[in-house]
Amino acid sequence: MTSIALDVMGSDGGPEPLVEGAARLSREDVDVQVLLVGDEARIAEALKKQKYDPSRLAVVHARGQVPMNMKPAEALDTIEDCSVLRAARLVQDGDAQAIVSAGNTGGLILASARTFQRLPGISRCALAAVYPTELRHGPRDDPFALMLDVGATLNCTAEDLRGFAVMGSAYSRIISDIGRPRVALLSNGSEASKGTPNIVEAHAALAAFSAGDGSNALDFAGNVEGLDIPRGTVDVVVCEGFVGNVVLKMLEGVSEVVSDLARDAYARRFLWRLGLTMLSQGIRQIRTKTDWKQYGGAPVLGFDQVVIKAHGRSNARAIRNALKVAAKAVDRDLSGEIKRTMASFE
Amino acid sequence: MTSIALDVMGSDGGPEPLVEGAARLSREDVDVQVLLVGDEARIAEALKKQKYDPSRLAVVHARGQVPMNMKPAEALDTIEDCSVLRAARLVQDGDAQAIVSAGNTGGLILASARTFQRLPGISRCALAAVYPTELRHGPRDDPFALMLDVGATLNCTAEDLRGFAVMGSAYSRIISDIGRPRVALLSNGSEASKGTPNIVEAHAALAAFSAGDGSNALDFAGNVEGLDIPRGTVDVVVCEGFVGNVVLKMLEGVSEVVSDLARDAYARRFLWRLGLTMLSQGIRQIRTKTDWKQYGGAPVLGFDQVVIKAHGRSNARAIRNALKVAAKAVDRDLSGEIKRTMASFE
Repeated sequence: MTSIALDVMGSDGGPEPLVEGAARLSREDVDVQVLLVGDEARIAEALKKQKYDPSRLAVVHARGQVPMNMKPAEALDTIEDCSVLRAARLVQDGDAQAIVSAGNTGGLILASARTFQRLPGISRCALAAVYPTELRHGPRDDPFALMLDVGATLNCTAEDLRGFAVMGSAYSRIISDIGRPRVALLSNGSEASKGTPNIVEAHAALAAFSAGDGSNALDFAGNVEGLDIPRGTVDVVVCEGFVGNVVLKMLEGVSEVVSDLARDAYARRFLWRLGLTMLSQGIRQIRTKTDWKQYGGAPVLGFDQVVIKAHGRSNARAIRNALKVAAKAVDRDLSGEIKRTMASFE
Repeated sequence: MTSIALDVMGSDGGPEPLVEGAARLSREDVDVQVLLVGDEARIAEALKKQKYDPSRLAVVHARGQVPMNMKPAEALDTIEDCSVLRAARLVQDGDAQAIVSAGNTGGLILASARTFQRLPGISRCALAAVYPTELRHGPRDDPFALMLDVGATLNCTAEDLRGFAVMGSAYSRIISDIGRPRVALLSNGSEASKGTPNIVEAHAALAAFSAGDGSNALDFAGNVEGLDIPRGTVDVVVCEGFVGNVVLKMLEGVSEVVSDLARDAYARRFLWRLGLTMLSQGIRQIRTKTDWKQYGGAPVLGFDQVVIKAHGRSNARAIRNALKVAAKAVDRDLSGEIKRTMASFE
């Protein structure tokens, strides 16, 4: 049985949606145990409202939590017994095989860095996120692609970017079942010479590694541009954390603005209102297509343990999905997959 | 009379839309002369199809042009008598006061760098572009904001970013008539401590300069995030050229994808088709709101002369608007405005 340490503290909605997500999973036919890490009184209260399989849920008390707006190092150094650090230690001690948290992202990354080892050849970790695309990906026709880094490492060396390409490819193989994911660097032009020096250097390294008989798992597609992001021309987009953060937040902003414009039009005219009503099934379909929050968490890649960051506003369903993703990454040996590809470099 | 050197070569549509745009402007009641710089045979042919005021148009022959996909330095060094360089020299010699080109962007920037002086305190130039926003800006309720740099300088120092903030603010005052434009740095968080070291340093410099009695022209609004870009929370967004290039192309990509999805829905169901027909006026209105290509060209800022880059796919209307923007920048002394603000630093 796979055991997952779930840090239930520090999210926008409190422990309730996290406990509910774990309770839901406990009733499903999956071989997963969840350790609920956090304030035991609040967890007990949240559990009262849920049906769950008690053989699949356990509570591990931790008094403290990392507040959303506190610097991670300051929080971990000054607040005693933070739930995220406690959860990481459960993984370190072998009581769990993965950690999931919906709290402060920096807190999760720092707690992981203080507890886990980095994978060989990986000097910086990356936060990877799926985002909606027009084109479909993989055997299940997923309407989303993977992007990394989206904020863990603001500035990256060529080696960092190369590592991110390997990790993104491995994650995409393991979680999305894409045999040889197409991986590209985000740049300001498609030519190999385009981009900042670190991108040009990473391009050369990845092209050299990927070229040949296709026997290794990395399918490097070269550079993509901003235009290709919403289109989704590749399965994995690799970039520095600063750019990835801006891009991901911009996608959120665009979807908010489109909703606002539609609402605006809706309010204004009867004929438009009628038109929108007729279109509503189509709009719902587009929304479902683009509701990437239902696809569980964003992995923090680079450590020898599985680390999943769930959105701070996750509902129970998103938490349940994040837990399933974590279990899948453990069962299919994500870390081993990354290690093997990194080892085949050089 | 303001004279503008218009490089008519090297755009996607050939000289025709450029000549037509200049011809249109010549028939309007504006005190502008346009020098059409390029292959005189092709210009003469294009002029045959146009009505124009001959006292407001003149042809300056140049044999060569910078191809769209050639490295600018290679083109300017090996191709004789490139139209863009000829146009820049007309400005240098005082025969014109501004240059407009729809050709190779790098070619325009390099020709400018080889011909013009940089403004005091400005070490790197920036390409600024307007993009559509949800919120309105300035006295005319413009549905767009300004972003710079969008590709001229991929990596920037804090000083570069500071200069871009000053230049973007001046351009916004002069062209969009916004008294004290709100200027922000694009970062991965709103706090002053967020961002790469150059952004943090630029933030401190701009905050120190902008703070106080509001008597200087720069209104620094701090950091904005990716979410704020489509929303349009500030008038001017300042960023490194790499990020700006990705963001701008992504906005293009998003608008293409939304069109595709709408087309897709349109084709699929009769009821949707009916709904879309009813909505068409609203959709047209949104499109007009967001058709930023009609707002003329993108300025290359940092030189002591007015340099405007029109889109490679510009139609006659866009060219006419770019010429008007160039004339306005000359008449209202854009370069002087930037110089004065830079001088008030320190």
